[in-house]
Amino acid sequence: MNENIRIAIAGHGNLGRGVEAAIGNNPDMRLVGVYSRRAPDQIKPRHAETPVYAMEQLPEDTDKIDVLILCGGSKEDLPRQGPELAALFNTVDSFDTHARIPEYFAEVDPVARANNRTALVATGWDPGLFSLNRALGEALLPDGATYTFWGDGLSQGHSDALRRVAGVAGAVQYTRPAQEAISQVLAGERPELTAQKMHKRECFVVLEDGADAEEVRTAIVTMPHYFDGYDTTVNFISAEELARDHQAMVHGGFVIRSGNTSPDTTQVMEYGLKLGSNPEFTASVLVACARAVHRMNALGQVGAKTIYDVPLGLLSRRSPEELRAQLL
Amino acid sequence: MNENIRIAIAGHGNLGRGVEAAIGNNPDMRLVGVYSRRAPDQIKPRHAETPVYAMEQLPEDTDKIDVLILCGGSKEDLPRQGPELAALFNTVDSFDTHARIPEYFAEVDPVARANNRTALVATGWDPGLFSLNRALGEALLPDGATYTFWGDGLSQGHSDALRRVAGVAGAVQYTRPAQEAISQVLAGERPELTAQKMHKRECFVVLEDGADAEEVRTAIVTMPHYFDGYDTTVNFISAEELARDHQAMVHGGFVIRSGNTSPDTTQVMEYGLKLGSNPEFTASVLVACARAVHRMNALGQVGAKTIYDVPLGLLSRRSPEELRAQLL
Ligand SMILES: NC(=O)c1ccc[n+]([C@@H]2O[C@H](COP(=O)([O-])OP(=O)(O)OC[C@H]3O[C@@H](n4cnc5c(N)ncnc54)[C@H](OP(=O)(O)O)[C@@H]3O)[C@@H](O)[C@H]2O)c1
Ligand SMILES: NC(=O)c1ccc[n+]([C@@H]2O[C@H](COP(=O)([O-])OP(=O)(O)OC[C@H]3O[C@@H](n4cnc5c(N)ncnc54)[C@H](OP(=O)(O)O)[C@@H]3O)[C@@H](O)[C@H]2O)c1
Repeated sequence: MNENIRIAIAGHGNLGRGVEAAIGNNPDMRLVGVYSRRAPDQIKPRHAETPVYAMEQLPEDTDKIDVLILCGGSKEDLPRQGPELAALFNTVDSFDTHARIPEYFAEVDPVARANNRTALVATGWDPGLFSLNRALGEALLPDGATYTFWGDGLSQGHSDALRRVAGVAGAVQYTRPAQEAISQVLAGERPELTAQKMHKRECFVVLEDGADAEEVRTAIVTMPHYFDGYDTTVNFISAEELARDHQAMVHGGFVIRSGNTSPDTTQVMEYGLKLGSNPEFTASVLVACARAVHRMNALGQVGAKTIYDVPLGLLSRRSPEELRAQLL
Repeated sequence: MNENIRIAIAGHGNLGRGVEAAIGNNPDMRLVGVYSRRAPDQIKPRHAETPVYAMEQLPEDTDKIDVLILCGGSKEDLPRQGPELAALFNTVDSFDTHARIPEYFAEVDPVARANNRTALVATGWDPGLFSLNRALGEALLPDGATYTFWGDGLSQGHSDALRRVAGVAGAVQYTRPAQEAISQVLAGERPELTAQKMHKRECFVVLEDGADAEEVRTAIVTMPHYFDGYDTTVNFISAEELARDHQAMVHGGFVIRSGNTSPDTTQVMEYGLKLGSNPEFTASVLVACARAVHRMNALGQVGAKTIYDVPLGLLSRRSPEELRAQLL
């Protein structure tokens, strides 16, 4: 099926750059361009040939774009851009403030519906693929328990927190799933676990000149909310090491459901991701979702949608016949 | 959502008994009964209170049943029962002869469509959940490779083959995924692997009185198609051990996709199952799928369907609002 789906990107951060890369892996898609709030000449696209436009240009380009992928931040950008742009385009976004999803959905849905647009909100890997597996696990094994582990992953929020500690010149923090906890869960033991028992925190810190390592370490491991109560390791490294070894935005994790189908019979289902780049993978999910949105809109399925509403065959470039013959 | 979905079971083998168990874990469902080709008094249901009827009774009970779960064998039963019963009921089946799925789909589809029924064919875990992950992996990481590993699992076909070897009184065979191959795949190396390199075969054999162990071992490991070319281990055990330790129909496996989103960035996605009982887990999938079929039929989505056509939220007992608020 060569559908030649015309995709545009709204917002050019990590995710927007990731979408540029992902389009290249999908021969049924064509990138119309990147639209940014910043002046186009300020934007350096990943591929020199990607056209860059001002965001204000978007309303004039509705006929040129089949699906607009919203790559703004969840905190400040999407709450405004999502409802606004769903009036003009079919959209896909990766809104990831979990607690606010119902509110965000309620903002986008009526606008999209009134304009016959399809808006797939809050997709990616979490929310997104992990959400799918949480729901599947529960539906398939109703008598059971679900565990979401994150990592190994670079945590932006925790890295920022480290950088605010006095004496720290630079830092990154990795969240790592605790192997003991994973083993217990995979064994079907349904342990009671807190986020603290499920994850370890590993910090790589560059000290400021003259800073006291032990004082910095203590300030970190006792920091409330962020590190207190966690098994936290602090490694001191040079600025060169930080620049050389810790730039990749690795991430990932596991969703595990363990349950019983009868009193003596345990079943375990596990979904895991090991991501060399969080934004590039998330972008790949958004791009496949854009294909589904294009098709759902053609089928008259308008309004706000989540990954729970998408028949997953629509994500594939293959026709239903091919999927049945080749992959089922 | 308490929908009180009325389920019936056609065929009472391992899977049919599994469905009996699974219904008990789903309070929105009620078991109407088991229908069998054998005389009802020959059937011993898992729960004494499960009503048992003759298969010929089915056409009279169309008003009593929302979804009929077909638990016949894929080789002899479903090719006849599937199209026939899709004229009368919404159905779910686990037809697993992969190569024949298109043919089977083509038999069921027109009948279901003509009678406004929804027939979800070839679901379970493979085909089913594994198929879903093969398609997802390819759609999300188009530049990549997919690997399906099976095991640790009791293989019925290979156990049967062992029992046909001269000198063997009883036997079971476990298929085990090769850890070295899994490690290579998880590392994103995209190795070229054959089924032989991906799996090991472990046999537990009870010898007949006077049989020569070495002769039996040689006959097994050199058996064409089944064992030749595989890393095969043969363990000799007593009849008591066979009866005590090798009755559980354990199974499982992994679908792994590794791919690149850009030349230097590897991403790995993994879906794994560790099943204490293959038929009980498969039955749990069929039961959740029956919920989706019931809802799809109510939405007017008739004809034959596969898991690729099902929005996965429909498998959940939760409403779309709840799914968004609790699990997304
Ligand atoms: N669901 C999931 O699994 C998942 C996974 C990862 C991320 N996410 C979500 O994706 C969102 C976007 O992530 P991101 O890493 O792409 O965020 P980001 O790099 O901070 O980009 C967000 C926006 O900020 C603007 N921006 C980027 N670089 C800028 C710069 N140098 N100067 C000024 N403005 C700049 C861009 O908009 P303009 O071009 O319009 O200025 C861009 O759209 C996150 O908020 C997160 O919610 C979701
Ligand atoms: N998609 C997947 O992931 C997946 C996984 C596992 C299995 N499967 C499929 O499920 C199918 C059914 O598996 P199963 O283990 O339930 O097969 P099974 O035990 O052999 O039962 C198949 C049928 O044989 C009849 N039967 C059962 N026990 C009998 C007995 N003692 N005497 C005479 N007839 C008997 C039953 O029909 P009546 O009651 O009408 O006689 C039953 O419906 C398999 O063929 C396989 O294709 C699919």
